Amino acid sequence: MNIQTFPELATGSLDLPQPYLLFLGDTTHAGYAKTALGLRDWAPEKCVGEYALPGATVSAGLDRLTPAEARERGARSLLIGVANSGGVIAESWMPALVEALDAGLDIVSGMHMRLSDLPDLAARARELGRQLIDVRDPPRALPVGTGRKRSGQRLLTVGTDCALGKKYTALALARAFAARGVDADFRATGQTGIMIAGGGVPMDAVVSDFEAGAAELVSPDAAPGHWDVVEGQGSLFHPAYAAVSLGLLHGSQPDVIVVCHQPGRDEVMGLPGYKLPDIEETIELNLRLGSRTNPAIRCAGVSFNTAHMDADEADALMAAESARLGLPVADPIRGGEAFDRLVDSCLA
Amino acid sequence: MNIQTFPELATGSLDLPQPYLLFLGDTTHAGYAKTALGLRDWAPEKCVGEYALPGATVSAGLDRLTPAEARERGARSLLIGVANSGGVIAESWMPALVEALDAGLDIVSGMHMRLSDLPDLAARARELGRQLIDVRDPPRALPVGTGRKRSGQRLLTVGTDCALGKKYTALALARAFAARGVDADFRATGQTGIMIAGGGVPMDAVVSDFEAGAAELVSPDAAPGHWDVVEGQGSLFHPAYAAVSLGLLHGSQPDVIVVCHQPGRDEVMGLPGYKLPDIEETIELNLRLGSRTNPAIRCAGVSFNTAHMDADEADALMAAESARLGLPVADPIRGGEAFDRLVDSCLA
Repeated sequence: MNIQTFPELATGSLDLPQPYLLFLGDTTHAGYAKTALGLRDWAPEKCVGEYALPGATVSAGLDRLTPAEARERGARSLLIGVANSGGVIAESWMPALVEALDAGLDIVSGMHMRLSDLPDLAARARELGRQLIDVRDPPRALPVGTGRKRSGQRLLTVGTDCALGKKYTALALARAFAARGVDADFRATGQTGIMIAGGGVPMDAVVSDFEAGAAELVSPDAAPGHWDVVEGQGSLFHPAYAAVSLGLLHGSQPDVIVVCHQPGRDEVMGLPGYKLPDIEETIELNLRLGSRTNPAIRCAGVSFNTAHMDADEADALMAAESARLGLPVADPIRGGEAFDRLVDSCLA
Repeated sequence: MNIQTFPELATGSLDLPQPYLLFLGDTTHAGYAKTALGLRDWAPEKCVGEYALPGATVSAGLDRLTPAEARERGARSLLIGVANSGGVIAESWMPALVEALDAGLDIVSGMHMRLSDLPDLAARARELGRQLIDVRDPPRALPVGTGRKRSGQRLLTVGTDCALGKKYTALALARAFAARGVDADFRATGQTGIMIAGGGVPMDAVVSDFEAGAAELVSPDAAPGHWDVVEGQGSLFHPAYAAVSLGLLHGSQPDVIVVCHQPGRDEVMGLPGYKLPDIEETIELNLRLGSRTNPAIRCAGVSFNTAHMDADEADALMAAESARLGLPVADPIRGGEAFDRLVDSCLA
């Protein structure tokens, strides 16, 4: 049997079996196919096609292939690209999942419900020698942090809160670095990021004693000119999740931070009464605490999530904030010159 | 079968089966019997006696009882009071552990090796309906933090580093509060503390997303005049363990902190090159970060571990530091007027 759980990946090769066939289930709402759409947008070279059940209306716009066809085109796993509420693997998906195993594909899932907890699927995988990979599974056998300075350059996206663009910003910066010929890797610390990158560590699932050690593992020693662009998690100001953020900050020992914020968000998401810190305070505290493991840490700029604003309003706000802070402020989704200036500042 | 793991305790009654019969194994070095000696010193009312194998030379000074005799005197569990290097449950202890189960006792262990991983012992416990309680086991089903302000008063011991007296200081303060007629509970966050208190959460074993939530659980709502004296863990300045410390600080939302330090320690234990923060910096950062969940947080004073100094030298240093900082500075082991002033300041 080869029920591979994430820890082996984390401490070993950091490789998910790629490329993927994206599984869309019977999804009729694009919002539930976020994982598949994220894969298509950020790792198209890792996606050979998509596979949906009758009744599905959402498409990632890729070739529609059966598992057998996908296997022939080189796919190594079926990736569940659906994120329904509750993280449930529906009974109605089972024939398709078994079909994938039979066709020679492993299965990769970031659902809350674990593949390895489904007895029939686990039995079939065992029989065939296939892997069932639950990306959310907490790593085992992680090291404790050492604080040792590693070679290469590191950037970490940090935030005023959860869920406001830290993953997107890191992906956009890694892509922009590469476009300028800079050797760069996106380093994933959450489940969707891990699927995009093909590896990483789900930092929120790590036992707290190993949090910094896990972060050290995510961005190992590298060549002097190489950049690891590390996906941030949570916020140092979050009453529930700051432990994740501090362990990640200490362990990733960034040379550069980029602060992510959503203009107009005033309170911690889900915790009314907890005011968000302002941007200056977020910069200052991250630099102060980050300097413990990297005294040369600096802030290169700010990333705004302005999806809810019109273009003129967003541009005016970012220009004003940039002047006020003396730092580049850009929305990576809007791109443009402001984003170029942010990239310049990161690489300066 | 009733292999009780810690989570049920943490989310349920927080009760270990007490009183204990302290098991000393075949120990010949007092250093390895630290757990038993800590229990004797801090929870004598929870210890009905001790049980050692032939060849043991260490004693906690309690009545030597067989498991059957201890059961007759009301003991509910055999507590492994030995902490050898490696945390190994020796093969030579097995007959004594089985004897305890047969006599009607549960077994409580803080060893790295898990009781429930010993097949013969687990089978016997199952057969008899006894509990094997591994205090180190990571809690399951913990809540995420809410940041909600709880009723009652809280004190947290914090430190410039690991392993310099945070547990001892918390125990001494809780005892001193009680001696003054103040309603107080010691709240344990590490394995030895949990055995002394009879419950608690091993904070370093908690998944980081639940760290603050676990800390909230450790010191629940209480009467307005009641004090929870919470055992601190690690240090905000520790490159490996700061995540544990920040989650505990946010979740325990202390009204009062006491900073623990060992004079003469200049570097983080085990991490040469990492200088310890000074006391002022430790106070300031804990107050700043702690104010996120309790804006009224204050520092009541400093606890020095001066075990390596002679009395005159220690007294002179503490007097000078107290004058310099404008705060009480005391060694709880030495007690005296300095410690009284520290207690005054905590309760002020």
